[in-house]
Amino acid sequence: MRRIAVYPGSFDPITNGHLDVIERATRLFDEVIVAIAENDAKHPLFTLKERREMAAQAIRRWKNVHLDDFSGLLVEYVAARKACAIIRGLRAVSDFEFEFQMALMNRKLNPEIETIFLMPREDYTYLSSRIIKEIARLGGNVDGFVPSWVADALIKKLRDK
Amino acid sequence: MRRIAVYPGSFDPITNGHLDVIERATRLFDEVIVAIAENDAKHPLFTLKERREMAAQAIRRWKNVHLDDFSGLLVEYVAARKACAIIRGLRAVSDFEFEFQMALMNRKLNPEIETIFLMPREDYTYLSSRIIKEIARLGGNVDGFVPSWVADALIKKLRDK
Amino acid sequence: MRRIAVYPGSFDPITNGHLDVIERATRLFDEVIVAIAENDAKHPLFTLKERREMAAQAIRRWKNVHLDDFSGLLVEYVAARKACAIIRGLRAVSDFEFEFQMALMNRKLNPEIETIFLMPREDYTYLSSRIIKEIARLGGNVDGFVPSWVADALIKKLRDK
Amino acid sequence: MRRIAVYPGSFDPITNGHLDVIERATRLFDEVIVAIAENDAKHPLFTLKERREMAAQAIRRWKNVHLDDFSGLLVEYVAARKACAIIRGLRAVSDFEFEFQMALMNRKLNPEIETIFLMPREDYTYLSSRIIKEIARLGGNVDGFVPSWVADALIKKLRDK
Amino acid sequence: MRRIAVYPGSFDPITNGHLDVIERATRLFDEVIVAIAENDAKHPLFTLKERREMAAQAIRRWKNVHLDDFSGLLVEYVAARKACAIIRGLRAVSDFEFEFQMALMNRKLNPEIETIFLMPREDYTYLSSRIIKEIARLGGNVDGFVPSWVADALIKKLRDK
Amino acid sequence: MRRIAVYPGSFDPITNGHLDVIERATRLFDEVIVAIAENDAKHPLFTLKERREMAAQAIRRWKNVHLDDFSGLLVEYVAARKACAIIRGLRAVSDFEFEFQMALMNRKLNPEIETIFLMPREDYTYLSSRIIKEIARLGGNVDGFVPSWVADALIKKLRDK
Repeated sequence: MRRIAVYPGSFDPITNGHLDVIERATRLFDEVIVAIAENDAKHPLFTLKERREMAAQAIRRWKNVHLDDFSGLLVEYVAARKACAIIRGLRAVSDFEFEFQMALMNRKLNPEIETIFLMPREDYTYLSSRIIKEIARLGGNVDGFVPSWVADALIKKLRDK
Repeated sequence: MRRIAVYPGSFDPITNGHLDVIERATRLFDEVIVAIAENDAKHPLFTLKERREMAAQAIRRWKNVHLDDFSGLLVEYVAARKACAIIRGLRAVSDFEFEFQMALMNRKLNPEIETIFLMPREDYTYLSSRIIKEIARLGGNVDGFVPSWVADALIKKLRDK
Repeated sequence: MRRIAVYPGSFDPITNGHLDVIERATRLFDEVIVAIAENDAKHPLFTLKERREMAAQAIRRWKNVHLDDFSGLLVEYVAARKACAIIRGLRAVSDFEFEFQMALMNRKLNPEIETIFLMPREDYTYLSSRIIKEIARLGGNVDGFVPSWVADALIKKLRDK
Repeated sequence: MRRIAVYPGSFDPITNGHLDVIERATRLFDEVIVAIAENDAKHPLFTLKERREMAAQAIRRWKNVHLDDFSGLLVEYVAARKACAIIRGLRAVSDFEFEFQMALMNRKLNPEIETIFLMPREDYTYLSSRIIKEIARLGGNVDGFVPSWVADALIKKLRDK
Repeated sequence: MRRIAVYPGSFDPITNGHLDVIERATRLFDEVIVAIAENDAKHPLFTLKERREMAAQAIRRWKNVHLDDFSGLLVEYVAARKACAIIRGLRAVSDFEFEFQMALMNRKLNPEIETIFLMPREDYTYLSSRIIKEIARLGGNVDGFVPSWVADALIKKLRDK
Repeated sequence: MRRIAVYPGSFDPITNGHLDVIERATRLFDEVIVAIAENDAKHPLFTLKERREMAAQAIRRWKNVHLDDFSGLLVEYVAARKACAIIRGLRAVSDFEFEFQMALMNRKLNPEIETIFLMPREDYTYLSSRIIKEIARLGGNVDGFVPSWVADALIKKLRDK
């Protein structure tokens, strides 16, 4: 039996914390689908195309990781991809509560799909796409938090704004 | 002595979680006032009139529940209605902190009014008006989370937008 | 309809924080029963008789508060007393989680009985019988945290040990 | 590649909450090992033999679940069984913190082994072996919380004490 | 060795809770710099000039407190001022998590600078600039939460809007 | 003005997490007193003399750190040493709540003494004396978590028991 897991998110942009979670997931599942939510309502900094390109370059290192994007209900997407699990990284208590509400709701919407929580490396607990963008906006150095091409894209994007 | 409690909220829209809390309150107080906050600053999805109509239909089942709306400070409204308590449903730790800050502030503004916390049914812990609207927006089925007329109103409202 | 609430606890010993919660409950219910759990398994510092005497003196100020003790399941005691509610003071997030688990379990054991949570005065948030006993044991002054006769009893009890 | 996960615990005794987590794990892994920690330092109510027997009867329903016990470091046991993951059920924020500390420590001791967190059914969030034993000790009914043979064993054990 | 600490914030407007933290900091450091973040992205209610004026009047009482404003990365500002510490007030668990993430990130950006957390007076735990503005907007009385000139400025600002 | 801070604890035994907090404190205060609580009621694994010796060797590296022990109320000890602050390391939300209760109580007992919270290195968040002893007891390797002489003492102590 081949087991597929979906790792959903905005990935605006993808960070080293995301990559750490993906790495862990590759050892637990036969296939991991990194699924970028369009999320136009959230007004992402990067377009879906830009987010895809940055993520694609980052996941090239794993054979059993694929990239996709989706709109609509997550559980419907997961079922359509015949995946059995949704993967979420848990960093902090506040994450935990929101993630639990989402996971309980998703289970109600489709009881066949399990949400599993992984713990990123402890020195990535403070990492989030939001905080990375804030630092870049203030002129800080984000090397070490994101892949080099993401750092470059951030600088370019914020300069062009 | 007749005891009145106020259950305030945006009710944008009213959910089965709200109704569960109201049901519990009816057994503890002689009268329960469901008080809809105008909250224009929060840009509700439904107008005050729509929120009132959906709630009115839902509370018809209880004799000692009345519907009202208010603007301005909650504690002033509660005092004007000669109520002794504010009712709040507590779902999660994050609720708890925000609710406690509000309750402490309200106590400072009027020490006569007590805030009491009730616990909704555990399978409603993941329910919130916000998450219901998100699911409806993504085309998901919200039956079982809200009364049928609220589900219909959500579909109609989101289609018209 | 006459509404009775039970405020259960070990009261080992009763503190000003407990009295603050009782005061708030007297305004919400027709009768409040302060119910001391025997709890021999917890090895209380004071005997049940001593805990009763200290509490009895403290609640004399309210006409609608009565004192009792119980062993066995709390929900059975509450039902036997024809009370509709269990009162609990909520101080902190850690309280909240344990209290919620107990309240959910009690609801499962008897769905007729509601647990309601009240918020003590904010300067009593750090008060607990455990911390009071620790301070007294280390020779600290507990006036202002407990009634004067409780402070005396603590000093006497710890000296005799 | 055959993936094995270990679900460790005291199982003193096994509850329906544990069984719910095991059920979910069976759909994610090729084999699930329920590993009972001897834990004599914790003075369990049931002997290791009794805990094994109660658990063995409960897991008979799944083909890919096996029962074992262990002493010593969990990560060494997991490595010896060639498992890739430790499974833990997350119920509440307080769980979350303790579980995270243990998981980080286990990762330090052996970075090859991943801890994954699953969410039990929401009406099992209040269930724990400790609370079950407390209810049984007070004469409450634990049917619906544990398998029937565990309920019987609890009554017998507490009567014999 | 002369030790300088920076207390950063939006101070939109300064509250009695902020002043309580500053008072505590003055006893721990030789100099305390109250550093107002420009934060135009957050759309503050008061202009930087107004926030400065309200704060300046409030800190006049301490000899070793100075006022400044900054934009850009906090750690770069702190280093430029040759300060060794960032001071933050911790009120609640939700504060705690966000503050920890910021502190860890700041430590990564500059390991020389320590973040220290102080606990405001317990009756200020519910105070925040946000809640003060909300109360003032609803016509509530904010005396006792902010200095008198801040209360006046709030009334004037909200009337003019 | 010379500022002294007290870092109290059981130090049973001292860990690299404690040493990280001490290092940070040395940069903020003129003198840091590591104060070992006798705490016989807690049945420490090591005698006070052993805990002192292990700590003494560890703090030799700093000129402005001194070692002491105390019994009785912490705030009385701190006042007797003419210190202005109590230092505590904050690792997790559960720490936070307990630490806050203790700090508020200590402030009530002596308002002159401030408790300040420091954040240990994020890879020490899972470290506690309790978990170190548990790992050593199960035969695990504690190098990297404690100084070498503490690791030796742990092995010897647990073998002799």
